Amino acid sequence: MKIMVINPNSTASMTDKIGACAKASAAEGTEIIAVNPPDSPASIEGYSDGALAIPGLLNEIQKGEADGVDGYIIACFDDTGLDACREVSAGPVVGICEAGMMAASMISTGFSVVTTLSRSIPIIEELADKYGMHRRCRNVRASELPVLALEDEGDDARNIIRDEILVAIAEDQCEAVVLGCAGMADLTDSLSKETGIPVIDGVVCAVKMTEALIGAGLATSKIGGYALPRAK
Amino acid sequence: MKIMVINPNSTASMTDKIGACAKASAAEGTEIIAVNPPDSPASIEGYSDGALAIPGLLNEIQKGEADGVDGYIIACFDDTGLDACREVSAGPVVGICEAGMMAASMISTGFSVVTTLSRSIPIIEELADKYGMHRRCRNVRASELPVLALEDEGDDARNIIRDEILVAIAEDQCEAVVLGCAGMADLTDSLSKETGIPVIDGVVCAVKMTEALIGAGLATSKIGGYALPRAK
Amino acid sequence: MKIMVINPNSTASMTDKIGACAKASAAEGTEIIAVNPPDSPASIEGYSDGALAIPGLLNEIQKGEADGVDGYIIACFDDTGLDACREVSAGPVVGICEAGMMAASMISTGFSVVTTLSRSIPIIEELADKYGMHRRCRNVRASELPVLALEDEGDDARNIIRDEILVAIAEDQCEAVVLGCAGMADLTDSLSKETGIPVIDGVVCAVKMTEALIGAGLATSKIGGYALPRAK
Amino acid sequence: MKIMVINPNSTASMTDKIGACAKASAAEGTEIIAVNPPDSPASIEGYSDGALAIPGLLNEIQKGEADGVDGYIIACFDDTGLDACREVSAGPVVGICEAGMMAASMISTGFSVVTTLSRSIPIIEELADKYGMHRRCRNVRASELPVLALEDEGDDARNIIRDEILVAIAEDQCEAVVLGCAGMADLTDSLSKETGIPVIDGVVCAVKMTEALIGAGLATSKIGGYALPRAK
Amino acid sequence: MKIMVINPNSTASMTDKIGACAKASAAEGTEIIAVNPPDSPASIEGYSDGALAIPGLLNEIQKGEADGVDGYIIACFDDTGLDACREVSAGPVVGICEAGMMAASMISTGFSVVTTLSRSIPIIEELADKYGMHRRCRNVRASELPVLALEDEGDDARNIIRDEILVAIAEDQCEAVVLGCAGMADLTDSLSKETGIPVIDGVVCAVKMTEALIGAGLATSKIGGYALPRAK
Amino acid sequence: MKIMVINPNSTASMTDKIGACAKASAAEGTEIIAVNPPDSPASIEGYSDGALAIPGLLNEIQKGEADGVDGYIIACFDDTGLDACREVSAGPVVGICEAGMMAASMISTGFSVVTTLSRSIPIIEELADKYGMHRRCRNVRASELPVLALEDEGDDARNIIRDEILVAIAEDQCEAVVLGCAGMADLTDSLSKETGIPVIDGVVCAVKMTEALIGAGLATSKIGGYALPRAK
Repeated sequence: MKIMVINPNSTASMTDKIGACAKASAAEGTEIIAVNPPDSPASIEGYSDGALAIPGLLNEIQKGEADGVDGYIIACFDDTGLDACREVSAGPVVGICEAGMMAASMISTGFSVVTTLSRSIPIIEELADKYGMHRRCRNVRASELPVLALEDEGDDARNIIRDEILVAIAEDQCEAVVLGCAGMADLTDSLSKETGIPVIDGVVCAVKMTEALIGAGLATSKIGGYALPRAK
Repeated sequence: MKIMVINPNSTASMTDKIGACAKASAAEGTEIIAVNPPDSPASIEGYSDGALAIPGLLNEIQKGEADGVDGYIIACFDDTGLDACREVSAGPVVGICEAGMMAASMISTGFSVVTTLSRSIPIIEELADKYGMHRRCRNVRASELPVLALEDEGDDARNIIRDEILVAIAEDQCEAVVLGCAGMADLTDSLSKETGIPVIDGVVCAVKMTEALIGAGLATSKIGGYALPRAK
Repeated sequence: MKIMVINPNSTASMTDKIGACAKASAAEGTEIIAVNPPDSPASIEGYSDGALAIPGLLNEIQKGEADGVDGYIIACFDDTGLDACREVSAGPVVGICEAGMMAASMISTGFSVVTTLSRSIPIIEELADKYGMHRRCRNVRASELPVLALEDEGDDARNIIRDEILVAIAEDQCEAVVLGCAGMADLTDSLSKETGIPVIDGVVCAVKMTEALIGAGLATSKIGGYALPRAK
Repeated sequence: MKIMVINPNSTASMTDKIGACAKASAAEGTEIIAVNPPDSPASIEGYSDGALAIPGLLNEIQKGEADGVDGYIIACFDDTGLDACREVSAGPVVGICEAGMMAASMISTGFSVVTTLSRSIPIIEELADKYGMHRRCRNVRASELPVLALEDEGDDARNIIRDEILVAIAEDQCEAVVLGCAGMADLTDSLSKETGIPVIDGVVCAVKMTEALIGAGLATSKIGGYALPRAK
Repeated sequence: MKIMVINPNSTASMTDKIGACAKASAAEGTEIIAVNPPDSPASIEGYSDGALAIPGLLNEIQKGEADGVDGYIIACFDDTGLDACREVSAGPVVGICEAGMMAASMISTGFSVVTTLSRSIPIIEELADKYGMHRRCRNVRASELPVLALEDEGDDARNIIRDEILVAIAEDQCEAVVLGCAGMADLTDSLSKETGIPVIDGVVCAVKMTEALIGAGLATSKIGGYALPRAK
Repeated sequence: MKIMVINPNSTASMTDKIGACAKASAAEGTEIIAVNPPDSPASIEGYSDGALAIPGLLNEIQKGEADGVDGYIIACFDDTGLDACREVSAGPVVGICEAGMMAASMISTGFSVVTTLSRSIPIIEELADKYGMHRRCRNVRASELPVLALEDEGDDARNIIRDEILVAIAEDQCEAVVLGCAGMADLTDSLSKETGIPVIDGVVCAVKMTEALIGAGLATSKIGGYALPRAK
């Protein structure tokens, strides 16, 4: 089974990290292809960054379709362009926010999200609403770490995120935390141990959910909202 | 006051029609600039059409900002890229779905939408949710007329829409109808008369609402979700 | 275009202030008629104050209808009697809470309200729900200033409101603030400058929205909920 | 225990019928006082009828307070002025729509309402929302019988309502029906037998719920939204 | 009229206390039968405790049906097995959480719940949602007192609960408090006096509501969700 | 990886069919253990059937815990006892309704459910609400086939279900259908082909989702709602 993991931003080092996490969690027969559009913003921090990334995203999926890819993952916590990607894809497309929230909702009665910048909070809250996670998602918190600082700052970044998780446990009545950025995918194990609750990464969840959908023989419905685009 | 009306698709004849409607409804001191991105899809019919139009849309806004434009209108009923446009604009940005639904909610206890193709129904329903119009929007109906057929088919198209409005009155407990496509902007007067209820066009409403916001001295908030994009 | 601005309470000095704000924001061709029912409570602070004001309100509208008024504004943040007024009016009727919240929702992803007394909080929260602003309205805060204190206390009142806005920015994840009383209409400019976010007055917004609806050729639907009252 | 049942309209024959139903269902020690304001509309059919009835309603409650009344019932299915009445009353105030819906929600997983005119549908739907009955209330149906026709037309009116109940059972997935007008209070027994489901009258339910609240020692909270009106 | 009050746990001293409270609040002609299943958990603290209690609960109801019981009360604030009990009962079945929240919603614009352990918070929040009390229920607070500590610790327990009520008044914008455990039924009078707001006990409310439903002649609907179980 | 699939009813032939479907869809390293409690109702058709099955369910999980089972599936579309099961299990527990709806929400903008008897509709609607699928779940339809008829009637049952799917496509604006009974697990392939939309079985989806959660290293959170039961 071939799964394409698309980092919507153009920072190759982040694509590499995401790809490594995806591969580490993939099942034996799963081939992970980690890509990013060449001309995207360097990071997705807000609505217009996301919008500018989508044409490149769609292009990667078109290449994937030609290449026999079975399913796709949008590896940005804003689930950038998810509906548009489903429209052009035969196989399933899964967003890492969607996958992380769904996983969290099956192992806790309520979870919080810890993301990068506060400007992303309304975007993630709107996704929670869209996915029906309004009640289960207790809070969306910003660490105020920019996306690329996660690449550069190592342990300091990790500790800031851990502290925010501890505040979430104390204040949000949450029982799990979803990390709100693809660039945090390498932190879950140590943070789970340190905080005593499940700390959930969307990339890993999306890999497993995409494998699950493909394994269940499911493809994107091609009537209605996700029908193939009309020829003009 | 300068208002830029952006037709997200690249069909110039439609831009002309939208621009004419906007000018006809604008106040005396309002200058209407009707544009479309040069490289957009010919019509916006679904998620990926919309996504492909946004970079061009953002570009038009950037030109507008340089040119002293006071406010912007997204003249597609999917409110294509509305949040992203607000992020890059100092003045207000209004979507025609948003403006049409808000106007309808102030003159009726409930309204239906009559749009083009049924593939747009989930998109418009999601907008109704986002704008808090879930209860007021009684139904979203498709006439199954493609966007460009509105350009080509004249009276036949008009009659199909009128018949759908009559069904909406009979079945939806609706008291007004919002036309769900910028290309229907020229039909409201005659359809209101013929059906006996307010038939509302989003382009006209958006022109008046944008004038209203600018006239009230309001600009897009620049903290939080609509803050200017971060430099990379 | 003739717009009647009805202050539901009987405090003439407040009617004058509201009328002056309305005139200052009206377009050139708009005639503002500011009135109040003669026998209303001196201020609207709670459900029964509001209920006692409505018969007088309806009477003013009936006078307006005889006098060729094109649209009406209910200038109390409880939007006192809004539905009843729409029933007896041909032209549009706009509430200042409704107009302020709609304007706020088009220039921010979330806003808070700062009102007078905490007894009004459940009333305003219920309006937010009714207008579909449940998600966008982050919080309703009381300054604990009675309505008429706004008339009497000048700068002290203003400073208390400013401080509450600053707390809202710090605690509510809000990007704009709507002032929750018609008697605060003169404070927006200075408070916007001082706090760095849009501070929105419902009276100004309602004037511009009513002009917008009338300018768009829209009148209250006369089938269903807002049909003229039945003769008994 | 003294309970005042207030018919908000001024049709004395309807007050008598409501009073008789209330007395028939009251417990042994309960004294029912059935009144109507002298100057109300003859029937409550829409928003402005309701609004015009409230000052008279509040006046009746003030008389009741002076007279040692323990609780009040608003005997119109629009629950006319319910919040305002709670503000001026020490004891509990119950609306017949509220009581009927709450009773229905405890004996079925979903119910429909059969009311008089379709212009009342948006009013009742808004009440269902306010009482949290949005999910449980499957549909609100109009028989298109005006309120006073229930007085005049006897068996014909009854049969029209029965037929609407049968349609509700067939189409709404409902398991009970609440009759949406105080003037239908005498029909429940025969209609329950004939249709095979619980047919619920709000007047009876409100009498029993008011007895229940008083019997539980509960009075209206006097902090916050229902605090006594402020002296002006 | 015979009402069976079922304490779902097997702690007989708690059944006695609940029974005494129920008898003290019952009307003259009401016979209260207080029982508990013999083999239940000693206290209901969480989902599996509740689930293990239901077969015994259903068994008590079957005995009650044979014995001519007119209505039933589930005397645990989780409303343990409420839907299942309705299915097997001809008369009404009322939960103490449901009854307490409904009563609170008729005498305040918003209330908080003070319960035992925080593990019960998600259960009670889900009930609030189910009963449509999402908006009215401002907060669910845990005193962290285990159920049986209420039996053992007397005044200390009472004071901890009183302090939590005072925090709720200060922080939750609540106007009433519902006590979230059947074991707190004896505390309402003194706590209401001490805190100045209605403090509401679900057992008392459920007794009065069950009397109300029976008195209104209402029985559980036997079509749809609460139809008698199918023979296997 | 060991996954226990628990059929909550005691019909062994149905357990066998469910087990076979689960095995057919499981990954290579997954061991499927299909069990049913010995003393459950023969089928789960309504609330009390479900409630009576839970103690046996919890017992199977306790056996599984002792036996090193990594995750559990509740193979009844009512997701019988799901929360209670999570409380007593270390690994994840997934319901087939939950898994089917989540899968459907990732490959369509809206889906309908086709279940057995109409008495199950309110149960499934409440689950849709709980899982946040209120908007995505367009309708819940009953075929009026009892659970065990699916065992006995073969092709006739299959055709009745296919016809209901075709009606759902025509009337519900749905783009996929979830089969609402574990006993329908063998029908999806042929029904998908015949109807042209994804027809989704919850058992298969739950197997793949449970593998996904375990594969992602996730276990049930043990703070808050799903903490281990307290020792009494």
